[in-house]
Amino acid sequence: MNKKPLAGLAALLPLASCAPKAPQQPNIVFFLVDDFGWVDSSVQYGDELYPNNLRFNTPNMQRLSERSTVFGNAYACAVSTPTRTSIMTGMNAAHTRITNWTSAVKDTPSDATGGGFWMAEHKGSGDAMEGDVLSRPDWNMNGISPVPGVPYTQYANSMVQYLKDAGYFTVHVGKAHWAAAGTPGVNAYNHGFCVNIAGTMAGMPRDYSGLQNYGNTKERWNDFAVQNLVEYYGTQTHLTEALTREAFKALDYPISHKQPFYLYLASYATHTPIQPDERFAQKYRDAGMDEGQAAYASLVEGVDASLGQVLDFLEEKGIADNTVVIFMTDNGGNSENKQKGGVLHTQNKPLREGKGSCYEGGIRVPLMIYYPGKTKVGKCNVPVICEDMFPTILDIAGVRGYETVQELDGQSILPLVTGVGEGPDPERPLVFHYPHKWKPYDLKDIDFLSAVRVGDWKLVYRIAEGVLELYNLKEDIGEEHDVAAENPDIVRRLADTLSERLSRWNAPMPVVVQTGNPAPLPNEI
Amino acid sequence: MNKKPLAGLAALLPLASCAPKAPQQPNIVFFLVDDFGWVDSSVQYGDELYPNNLRFNTPNMQRLSERSTVFGNAYACAVSTPTRTSIMTGMNAAHTRITNWTSAVKDTPSDATGGGFWMAEHKGSGDAMEGDVLSRPDWNMNGISPVPGVPYTQYANSMVQYLKDAGYFTVHVGKAHWAAAGTPGVNAYNHGFCVNIAGTMAGMPRDYSGLQNYGNTKERWNDFAVQNLVEYYGTQTHLTEALTREAFKALDYPISHKQPFYLYLASYATHTPIQPDERFAQKYRDAGMDEGQAAYASLVEGVDASLGQVLDFLEEKGIADNTVVIFMTDNGGNSENKQKGGVLHTQNKPLREGKGSCYEGGIRVPLMIYYPGKTKVGKCNVPVICEDMFPTILDIAGVRGYETVQELDGQSILPLVTGVGEGPDPERPLVFHYPHKWKPYDLKDIDFLSAVRVGDWKLVYRIAEGVLELYNLKEDIGEEHDVAAENPDIVRRLADTLSERLSRWNAPMPVVVQTGNPAPLPNEI
Repeated sequence: MNKKPLAGLAALLPLASCAPKAPQQPNIVFFLVDDFGWVDSSVQYGDELYPNNLRFNTPNMQRLSERSTVFGNAYACAVSTPTRTSIMTGMNAAHTRITNWTSAVKDTPSDATGGGFWMAEHKGSGDAMEGDVLSRPDWNMNGISPVPGVPYTQYANSMVQYLKDAGYFTVHVGKAHWAAAGTPGVNAYNHGFCVNIAGTMAGMPRDYSGLQNYGNTKERWNDFAVQNLVEYYGTQTHLTEALTREAFKALDYPISHKQPFYLYLASYATHTPIQPDERFAQKYRDAGMDEGQAAYASLVEGVDASLGQVLDFLEEKGIADNTVVIFMTDNGGNSENKQKGGVLHTQNKPLREGKGSCYEGGIRVPLMIYYPGKTKVGKCNVPVICEDMFPTILDIAGVRGYETVQELDGQSILPLVTGVGEGPDPERPLVFHYPHKWKPYDLKDIDFLSAVRVGDWKLVYRIAEGVLELYNLKEDIGEEHDVAAENPDIVRRLADTLSERLSRWNAPMPVVVQTGNPAPLPNEI
Repeated sequence: MNKKPLAGLAALLPLASCAPKAPQQPNIVFFLVDDFGWVDSSVQYGDELYPNNLRFNTPNMQRLSERSTVFGNAYACAVSTPTRTSIMTGMNAAHTRITNWTSAVKDTPSDATGGGFWMAEHKGSGDAMEGDVLSRPDWNMNGISPVPGVPYTQYANSMVQYLKDAGYFTVHVGKAHWAAAGTPGVNAYNHGFCVNIAGTMAGMPRDYSGLQNYGNTKERWNDFAVQNLVEYYGTQTHLTEALTREAFKALDYPISHKQPFYLYLASYATHTPIQPDERFAQKYRDAGMDEGQAAYASLVEGVDASLGQVLDFLEEKGIADNTVVIFMTDNGGNSENKQKGGVLHTQNKPLREGKGSCYEGGIRVPLMIYYPGKTKVGKCNVPVICEDMFPTILDIAGVRGYETVQELDGQSILPLVTGVGEGPDPERPLVFHYPHKWKPYDLKDIDFLSAVRVGDWKLVYRIAEGVLELYNLKEDIGEEHDVAAENPDIVRRLADTLSERLSRWNAPMPVVVQTGNPAPLPNEI
């Protein structure tokens, strides 16, 4: 139970929905992109523009960045569901114990150990196969739940429910991916959303094209087929475009009724399948990119166009001045998928590796926040993390003194945007934990990693190998120079910090096949 | 254009959504059942209880009927889409030219002539095959459209849009079936709904069982798979139950905000597939029914349970006294489907035939309306028809003086419920028009029929045979005794009336294969 009153106010029960709303409640748009990397746009999140930044045409992200607080050290989890559930719960993923993506099918581990989700009929156990050193951990593979007692879930109060209780009209559009089918957590209406368009158990779209009915076609299992878009079947409407249009329809009611809204617009792009968005792909081909690179860049530009449409829409409706826009990604860019073209394991350079990894390429993500009339425009380098979104969004909405069944780990970063009040300590530890095998093939810089960042220092625990690495991110953003040997005290301090968190949170740990015991904590090796 | 001001008021533009709402606006629940026949419950719509009424256990329909105006001569169209689009547009189906059900696939006639929808890959033309006397008409096979210019659609303003514009929170749950996929009319959000759960192009559910994911399973084309119910996948939750639960979630916002709502709860039951609802089926088996009969009765009882949950919900929320409940069916009970068990063509006795037919079994439907504190409880035998629902519902909502791009055919029947004001003339002509071949096999009392009722008289035009039949429904509800020969003047008068309407509305007429011309109007034979 989180009983500590936030913002210094006495704890109160959630406000009844019919309570009169404060007139100053701003609208909030949370624009969450999928698998979209830190250098996958023309926006400069780092200290410089990197060569990878030059691949993309993203004028609308640029436009938003020029009025926003741009976070250069923003973090998410290594994969989708943990980030999305951390946003909803305010908890670190090691704490929700939702450390991997949730399968479409209930009670089915997505771990690649032993096949897991990847085996035929999705009936794999995730247990180790011959030759594996580690087996999958016991984790909350069914995701979050708004009610207690559902196996393999984290029971938690949703941030969105508090918004709704405070009078917000709450709209979900796009990818949800909080929970497996057949559980209450998979249903956006159970988390306080008033409208849900296309949010299901799916972590990816079966198809981006309206011509393919977004995957709703014969003889394809439609767990990942996108729902609620029948209007566009058989048309050339790209999924990103269709979702954007539907979002605007859903906002008609609150805008007409002058009620504050929360729009969670979570594009399926730029997740695999990396299919070209033909509205934009040709110019990237013409620029000499290979087909995968061009397809990926076109998906990015589709997202950029969607963001532009949102910004235009807010202006046309006369509500741009009272609408906070948050732009973020759920994890780092995918760097191990051949569909994206280019050279594997380089797409997030200067960051090391990509999605799935606890190296920076997997977890450092774009984040910008625009609060009209209150934004400290420019770069902020204080490290922040996805679970901060829960208290931050409620802070923006003016929701105070709420109680939650779960213990919150995030902190409001609103002071970093407005310059008013005290933001998170730049030295607070941020924990990343991916105790899983991601794919049916080995990915040494992705599988079974855990990490903590404290200030400029970052400890990476390679669980399978029992190795601790130390990096100074200020000097070595690419994590190329392990300085653990030279800094044993810092290693020990960070290992203790990480161990204390993992232990306190009862974080999932992979099982050592040889002993049947959980892998040791970092300060136990 | 319908420019005649309704209710004697000057024509006004639709009220802006943000206009202050009248405090007396009642909530409205439109509970629309599918393929549910006139004698498929214990409610007495006729002058007596018939043997068929005794097959069903429907205490909640009974409960509602005891406080309602029960319409004994209420009509819908012979099949689903025409009724549903008449409700939305206020037009007769012969006038919308949507005289048959819309296929899932755009530009695909559902006519059984020439294969139509029924052919492999749904690519049939609907044109005549060898031996056919009639070929399919040119009709609006893509359904309704909220925008002009979409091929094969009726462009119309939706009744729901006016409700929304008047401040109603409008919720769609269940079967929509107004239009084909790939057209704007298929999207409930385009018709003024604030929330849409499960409404698509589907005219039936692929499966009623959560254990079968409502049809969202591998290797089944999911045009009829039910969307938005992922929470219940792999559980025993019946579709009717799942939809009811989702409806309550959707109503949370307007109830909390004390805003009037319109809930259109359109169950997929009791359409085929006639699968047993195992919550209820056994007692019907134990009573000696065959499996089909028991399965059908269990689907009916599931709907009855849903209605009871709705009534309970309204009471629990303290809004029952301000909520109008309308209970209706989209067409007559299916009498030609072996899945239902029993003896074909008898299930609607004393009415002749069933779904698809312009004989009474296909078009006479249950209708009851409960307006708290204003209802004239008991039977009303004034003939009313589905297009009356448009002006009736707006009348209930207090929406006046609206303009529509379409010419309205329906009239408000609210005076028949409240006893205040003047209701429709009992002698006004009601037109039924089904110029189609329904199934790939011949159904002589269903295919290619047109009819008009005026007072107690009913003329049936058997288009394929060029025959006019006349029945006196007061004396011969079963349409067993054709009295055309004895009443040539009445035949002529009704034939003229029907012809005038069909001609004025440019109603679709089947094509005579031999001549290539449209079939003659009834007064031309």
